[in-house]
Amino acid sequence: MKKIAVIGSGAVGCYYGGMLARMGQDVHFLMRSDLEAVRANGLTIQTGGERLKIPHVKAHASTKEIGHCDLVIISLKATGNQALEALLPPLIGPDTALLTLQNGLGNEEFLCKRWGAARVMGALCFVCLNRTAPGVIEHFDQGSISIGEFQRPSQARTRSIVEAFKSAGIDANVAENLLTERWRKLLWNIPFNGLSIAAQGATVSDVLADEGLRNLARHLMDEVLDAARRLGHDIRDEFADYQITRSATMGPYKPSSMIDWELGRPVEVEAIWGEPWRQGVAAGAGMGRLETVYRLLQRLTAR
Amino acid sequence: MKKIAVIGSGAVGCYYGGMLARMGQDVHFLMRSDLEAVRANGLTIQTGGERLKIPHVKAHASTKEIGHCDLVIISLKATGNQALEALLPPLIGPDTALLTLQNGLGNEEFLCKRWGAARVMGALCFVCLNRTAPGVIEHFDQGSISIGEFQRPSQARTRSIVEAFKSAGIDANVAENLLTERWRKLLWNIPFNGLSIAAQGATVSDVLADEGLRNLARHLMDEVLDAARRLGHDIRDEFADYQITRSATMGPYKPSSMIDWELGRPVEVEAIWGEPWRQGVAAGAGMGRLETVYRLLQRLTAR
Repeated sequence: MKKIAVIGSGAVGCYYGGMLARMGQDVHFLMRSDLEAVRANGLTIQTGGERLKIPHVKAHASTKEIGHCDLVIISLKATGNQALEALLPPLIGPDTALLTLQNGLGNEEFLCKRWGAARVMGALCFVCLNRTAPGVIEHFDQGSISIGEFQRPSQARTRSIVEAFKSAGIDANVAENLLTERWRKLLWNIPFNGLSIAAQGATVSDVLADEGLRNLARHLMDEVLDAARRLGHDIRDEFADYQITRSATMGPYKPSSMIDWELGRPVEVEAIWGEPWRQGVAAGAGMGRLETVYRLLQRLTAR
Repeated sequence: MKKIAVIGSGAVGCYYGGMLARMGQDVHFLMRSDLEAVRANGLTIQTGGERLKIPHVKAHASTKEIGHCDLVIISLKATGNQALEALLPPLIGPDTALLTLQNGLGNEEFLCKRWGAARVMGALCFVCLNRTAPGVIEHFDQGSISIGEFQRPSQARTRSIVEAFKSAGIDANVAENLLTERWRKLLWNIPFNGLSIAAQGATVSDVLADEGLRNLARHLMDEVLDAARRLGHDIRDEFADYQITRSATMGPYKPSSMIDWELGRPVEVEAIWGEPWRQGVAAGAGMGRLETVYRLLQRLTAR
């Protein structure tokens, strides 16, 4: 990669962008609230007892300052997608790839409609992060990323981007079927992000320690599995069981939506719950638990 | 009726007991927090612009003071049923009838196990009440009561109790199939009491004004209908539609469970959501929305 932009410098953008910058990639961050702090102090990633400092960070106040890039990493909240219509054009040259790291369904479609399917890529981030101060990211657990093309198999650029992430010390791999991977990730996000808010502040270990909520989380996964299969994504029951098992290692982790909700920030209700519910219902799946969580979240997150 | 006791002098007990006492019935109230206020000032029922005063009320601190009764009206919260094991025996003579006005499923069974099926009666109260101060009950809407025998058709005593309520100005009728009536009442309580808490303080008009929650309430009713029918209770779809329609006349009414929850008092989670969910699932019904609401309420109402 010659030149990379990171649009949306929250925990996810700063972590992956910071790791790439640390290993010498030319990474440009669009920043707002953290701009001065990061220009002064760089980025800090606290991970596994280590404290990684990235002292010199290219932080910008506008995308016009950045100019054309080879790769634009989009890590805004999906609720802020409208802002991309103004933010992205200065970054887009003839061969610019747009890689969305956003949660849920509908984000690739948003980019595709405006800038064409050939540019669009998506990635799934399996990582536990919190932004604890301006420019300071706490990395709790995991960190792998699956990167794929939208509506087509992997290309030469897919593999070269995966290699760039790998060179930065990130467990990266190619996702041959991006939408299937999105549904696999929703299998965790729908119950754990959803119940964290619907149960008014339940961490992952709170959900797992409450027998009723733990069973409900697993039953929500069954609804998501059914919907995904009807939509042609072959996900096995064992994968859902594994999601419960791996969650037990997370402890009192707050899903990102729970932190957004606690801080009064927008929650990605449509991308994570609304769009999967609509697609599942349209495919004939029974999605009663998801409907209940979705409708409660709409109300609980309304300003 | 010669002698009546009211056990559980919240809004429901004070309203029905007060209306009976006002028309000359010999009604004895077991009271705790309101005892002194009611001994001093009697009961006040505010209804439709009127202010009904019942100045001389027989309020007692223990059931031993009351002694044997012909009819014991039980209007405690179902969460306090264990206390009945000590409270009821002093009231029970050879022919004492036990009439539970409690919500949900399982209360008749509780009485039946301890004092025999022949004594047990149940009633459904369709009434909007709040207790606004010690001895002061605000009556918002409706007020009808359906009274029936447990596991048998109506008897002479059923009709004589209904007549006593009617003489007190209450719209009373005989319930020939008490459990069917319980399921009919749950059709309203499960969605509206449940969503009032799960949506963190949604009145009836809040639920109806939010299209997603209104549809969810109706879908919860479909689950309850399905469970009830599998259990042999013939309730028609039109009755569910009517429940939505009549709710529109209630305005920003707070269901009793919402008030309990706001005040930190126990909520009847097992009687209203847990037991119907278990019975429905055992009968093969799909109860995903009810499961979700039930599990969230268990967590949200835990001390």
